Amino acid sequence: MAGNTFGQLFKITTWGESHGKGVGVVIDGCPPGIFLDEDIIQQMLDRRRPGISAASTSRKEPDHPVIMSGVFNRMTTGTPIMILIANKDADSSAYEPLSDLYRPGHGDFTYIKKYGIRDWRGGGRASARETAARVAAGAVARALLDRERVTVQAYTIELGGIRAIKRNPDSICRNMFFCPDQDAAGRMEKRVAAVRQQGDSLGGIVEIVARNVPAGLGEPVFDKLDADLAKALMSIGAVKGVEIGSGFQAAGMTGAEHNDPITPIGFETNHAGGILAGISNGEDMIARVAVKPIPSISVNQQTIDESGTSRQIRIKGRHDVSAIPRINVVCEAMTCLVIADHLLRQKAIGR
Amino acid sequence: MAGNTFGQLFKITTWGESHGKGVGVVIDGCPPGIFLDEDIIQQMLDRRRPGISAASTSRKEPDHPVIMSGVFNRMTTGTPIMILIANKDADSSAYEPLSDLYRPGHGDFTYIKKYGIRDWRGGGRASARETAARVAAGAVARALLDRERVTVQAYTIELGGIRAIKRNPDSICRNMFFCPDQDAAGRMEKRVAAVRQQGDSLGGIVEIVARNVPAGLGEPVFDKLDADLAKALMSIGAVKGVEIGSGFQAAGMTGAEHNDPITPIGFETNHAGGILAGISNGEDMIARVAVKPIPSISVNQQTIDESGTSRQIRIKGRHDVSAIPRINVVCEAMTCLVIADHLLRQKAIGR
Amino acid sequence: MAGNTFGQLFKITTWGESHGKGVGVVIDGCPPGIFLDEDIIQQMLDRRRPGISAASTSRKEPDHPVIMSGVFNRMTTGTPIMILIANKDADSSAYEPLSDLYRPGHGDFTYIKKYGIRDWRGGGRASARETAARVAAGAVARALLDRERVTVQAYTIELGGIRAIKRNPDSICRNMFFCPDQDAAGRMEKRVAAVRQQGDSLGGIVEIVARNVPAGLGEPVFDKLDADLAKALMSIGAVKGVEIGSGFQAAGMTGAEHNDPITPIGFETNHAGGILAGISNGEDMIARVAVKPIPSISVNQQTIDESGTSRQIRIKGRHDVSAIPRINVVCEAMTCLVIADHLLRQKAIGR
Amino acid sequence: MAGNTFGQLFKITTWGESHGKGVGVVIDGCPPGIFLDEDIIQQMLDRRRPGISAASTSRKEPDHPVIMSGVFNRMTTGTPIMILIANKDADSSAYEPLSDLYRPGHGDFTYIKKYGIRDWRGGGRASARETAARVAAGAVARALLDRERVTVQAYTIELGGIRAIKRNPDSICRNMFFCPDQDAAGRMEKRVAAVRQQGDSLGGIVEIVARNVPAGLGEPVFDKLDADLAKALMSIGAVKGVEIGSGFQAAGMTGAEHNDPITPIGFETNHAGGILAGISNGEDMIARVAVKPIPSISVNQQTIDESGTSRQIRIKGRHDVSAIPRINVVCEAMTCLVIADHLLRQKAIGR
Repeated sequence: MAGNTFGQLFKITTWGESHGKGVGVVIDGCPPGIFLDEDIIQQMLDRRRPGISAASTSRKEPDHPVIMSGVFNRMTTGTPIMILIANKDADSSAYEPLSDLYRPGHGDFTYIKKYGIRDWRGGGRASARETAARVAAGAVARALLDRERVTVQAYTIELGGIRAIKRNPDSICRNMFFCPDQDAAGRMEKRVAAVRQQGDSLGGIVEIVARNVPAGLGEPVFDKLDADLAKALMSIGAVKGVEIGSGFQAAGMTGAEHNDPITPIGFETNHAGGILAGISNGEDMIARVAVKPIPSISVNQQTIDESGTSRQIRIKGRHDVSAIPRINVVCEAMTCLVIADHLLRQKAIGR
Repeated sequence: MAGNTFGQLFKITTWGESHGKGVGVVIDGCPPGIFLDEDIIQQMLDRRRPGISAASTSRKEPDHPVIMSGVFNRMTTGTPIMILIANKDADSSAYEPLSDLYRPGHGDFTYIKKYGIRDWRGGGRASARETAARVAAGAVARALLDRERVTVQAYTIELGGIRAIKRNPDSICRNMFFCPDQDAAGRMEKRVAAVRQQGDSLGGIVEIVARNVPAGLGEPVFDKLDADLAKALMSIGAVKGVEIGSGFQAAGMTGAEHNDPITPIGFETNHAGGILAGISNGEDMIARVAVKPIPSISVNQQTIDESGTSRQIRIKGRHDVSAIPRINVVCEAMTCLVIADHLLRQKAIGR
Repeated sequence: MAGNTFGQLFKITTWGESHGKGVGVVIDGCPPGIFLDEDIIQQMLDRRRPGISAASTSRKEPDHPVIMSGVFNRMTTGTPIMILIANKDADSSAYEPLSDLYRPGHGDFTYIKKYGIRDWRGGGRASARETAARVAAGAVARALLDRERVTVQAYTIELGGIRAIKRNPDSICRNMFFCPDQDAAGRMEKRVAAVRQQGDSLGGIVEIVARNVPAGLGEPVFDKLDADLAKALMSIGAVKGVEIGSGFQAAGMTGAEHNDPITPIGFETNHAGGILAGISNGEDMIARVAVKPIPSISVNQQTIDESGTSRQIRIKGRHDVSAIPRINVVCEAMTCLVIADHLLRQKAIGR
Repeated sequence: MAGNTFGQLFKITTWGESHGKGVGVVIDGCPPGIFLDEDIIQQMLDRRRPGISAASTSRKEPDHPVIMSGVFNRMTTGTPIMILIANKDADSSAYEPLSDLYRPGHGDFTYIKKYGIRDWRGGGRASARETAARVAAGAVARALLDRERVTVQAYTIELGGIRAIKRNPDSICRNMFFCPDQDAAGRMEKRVAAVRQQGDSLGGIVEIVARNVPAGLGEPVFDKLDADLAKALMSIGAVKGVEIGSGFQAAGMTGAEHNDPITPIGFETNHAGGILAGISNGEDMIARVAVKPIPSISVNQQTIDESGTSRQIRIKGRHDVSAIPRINVVCEAMTCLVIADHLLRQKAIGR
């Protein structure tokens, strides 16, 4: 059973390969009467395009979403919304020499083990290009969340080992890494430049905050809000870890330290990250994801080819030094999708 | 839309509250012809019972699973398997004084926000008792995995801030914490004793290893093996973080450090934790979960009651000092369920 | 992927075999705050018990439902409701001589082809006993429908070739066949007596009417209200055909005859059976099902055994002469489940 | 929860409106390694295009499917297959006068009741144009069935009250109605001509036969093969009834007449229509659907407008006189989809 559908009521199905005819998404379950046009989607898509920061390549990749169905007079109609993003600039010749090689850190090896066949052009379905469809869907989810005044924001709190100390919201849009600590951003920039020189790549940590999430979302015992969020974020290509609220820090705390006291005007602390027993409690919902370094690096690596023979590989071309900051908007999109889905799920039981 | 079903092909639906008539699970999708009896389930259930270690209470809670359907002459028939675990010893009087209070760190507050009503006896559906049904289902999944020689083991690598340095497999069964470092286990024991004295509680970290997982399991782009595993583990009550392979460490590595070189006889390192692009690569599958401290503590805490009035709360009775080590077998169960499900999903596409 | 779950939001999973420990159902997704106790379920279950009419056997089969979870102080809590109906009187010795024979018209042959193993005691999972769980679940769905004033009624319009001419609602409860035509009921009684004498069995047609179904239920293009209803009804063991509104009669009509004119106070006719383009239109929802004769007959039949050898079979014991009228309440239950599910589905999109 | 997805393992999601940018389908779960190109899809699509018979209009509607993803070197890769059929010739001006009127027999009224908004151009999502996506998906399912030698054929056995007496397979392709009785086809032609003259329309009955379906497909107790088939067929716009094997005839038979005797070389008769207890038995799978007359007729009809005011309506333009024979290939497509899905489902449990 294939796994290209996400969500239960606000349900998306994505399709498309890196160097095929395009990528896209069908959104089934968006309520009718939501204002939607291509500009709304374009704005969100623009935030994942390469070349917006020093950590990214300058490869040109203009993504123009076309709403193919489900919208009439700029209003959703309740029928499936298909958004198509055509591929451009898909010269696959650079990938031909790699077509029988398994790039370390990529899905080449596992796709062959799974399917027995793979579209090696640009990574095929395993390419990060797939996330364009997630972001387009996330833009529609966000349009729904707007109605409920829920906001979702992702920002970089670590890159190449450099941590943000401050959490200054104003800084986030003032540097190319969407980092809430301007000083840290400066050091990140130098680190990125140095690593690019070496042909190597970097990982980091992204934090996501959702505000105004109404209390009561999440479906115990398996589709808890944190469980669905963990799945949503872990399904993004480069993510190797997800934590909610205090996360791995919680392991070292005592109950007296960790429990958030409850007062008549809300919770005193937020170690829970806005989720208790898998259900939102009305506080800010906070998650963090660990992003591994980009596997495409231009240094020599040991691998094998399809026949199993030992080979050396060195990936040429201009690749991003880090999935950050392009991945940030993808994290936002997945978070919007989870909250939108659970808003509808809660509505169904009718309080 | 409620969320008490987990899995797509090996699909389980759990039910039951802490102080109701019982808890249980329907397993729909277990292939026919698997040897199964109550002893197999009992063995796994025994590992989550209280009183097996210094970290747990001595409350007696004998769980006797009864297979109500789906098995004929000790063989699964392909029809739904219902396993019933009757509740015993369910004196709810201790919970009565708390019936209109929201215990900090518990789901009392959020259940009311969600459902408008809650069964306050023993935590109701939000009680850890619910995990007995997961473990029973996990035992059936494990019976299926046995056929494929897949093994799954969970052990404690941190408790109360004390980390295991060694990974000695022989130690795991030699101490009450299932810790692979006998020295660390000794220090954990002292820490637990001290904290119990204070009426406080502890968190920790559990590591789960699955061996002999065939390459090719996992369904991109949303039902990736790591995504489903993250959801499975995060859905366990006390879990606040999940990481795969290098996890949060990956954030500080470069691509050259993190990529696992591929050789004709396998991967040289295993930073990927056995999963590449969401699909198993044949190496050991490794996950870690952060477990928060037990929220039930016998120290004074600030809270409110159902009317919103400020109140003090102090939870009496004998509670576990930590969800570890009882949670370990629950982590194993959820991991078994994920792998069993993906084994069947891969079979369906037929390679 | 197994198929023992029905419904998307009001979701039920049934389990159990004829001569196992019991049958039952988990209902996941029932909204909280619905009044529910065992009497409500008992009343509906009583209507499918054998011995209530001349068409049924006099075998005693007292079904006592026990609500195991999901209800607190006679109110649903939003958590899964498990209803258990223990099996009694399960002497399987009469089935032993048949354990390697395939009874014509039964699932013995196909269960072996599918699963390679079968619980031959009383037909196992393929027994009509399975429908007790459907009826229990239907009683809960009905409790939800009551809140919306939706009613569902099934009655017999044909039995053993004898058709009801009249549709007198008062007659339905006045005869043992739930037939709205008292004269026809009288003739049915004689037909049943005659056929019972011969050891043979009869089929018939049941009509189901749902009233006060709000306009707007049904989810095009696949989960249309009529499509889900067709599946629900066709999944009942003996059903070989389903039609909505004018049904097969529509094939012979012209558009001018068939279209229902619309007036300011409603539709002038109801050939549509209350469903247009897969969505309820506010008129009575009308379906009919064709019920095949009971396959267990005490006349000689040609069959084979598990080794493929030709054999004669003659089914002893007291069997129902017809699935009607016991099947009527099962049809009601399935209809209630479909409407309850679609009520919740419509609520989620929020008008 | 929206309903534009069909199937569990061979899963399709369709999208698109009559006069929007196009219609299409995402197929998720098609196994890798199936030969597929646009010609295969085109051939099946051609069979539903208008103008192929006297019952259809001569409106030109060239449907050119484009495979946008999931196929590499004419082989499926296991990733989602998106097939796009662009809309052409979508002049909506003829629909403008009807934009606030509810056409009798159409979904105009119910779409407004459900969604509060509707795309009135050409019927929007409720248009039969939607079935082009079903047929495209069905062509892919058929490519999978070919591998198992399963064939599916639909033919007309009644049109405008004229019944086919003979079942001559050779005749099916020799007349414009795909009728297995050449004489009946002749009479149908005259009936169609006469009714077209009057501006009225006709219904009929289509029979579908699937051959070489392996025994063992179908998932009791809800996803039985006949139940899923009933849903699949009933979800087609014009269908008002579905029956399997003896269908409604079964209601009048006795058990001795209806039961199919089993012999060492197969079943002696096939009243079951190839399905016993919801599982295929290896015989021909036979279904019939009742097709209502096309609701668009050019005679005066009573209706209301959006404000609830009484109005007269008369639908101009060239419409088909009957959904038959264009609907036949849609019936085939839905049947192929059901069998393909159940083939994969059976594979997962591994016999």
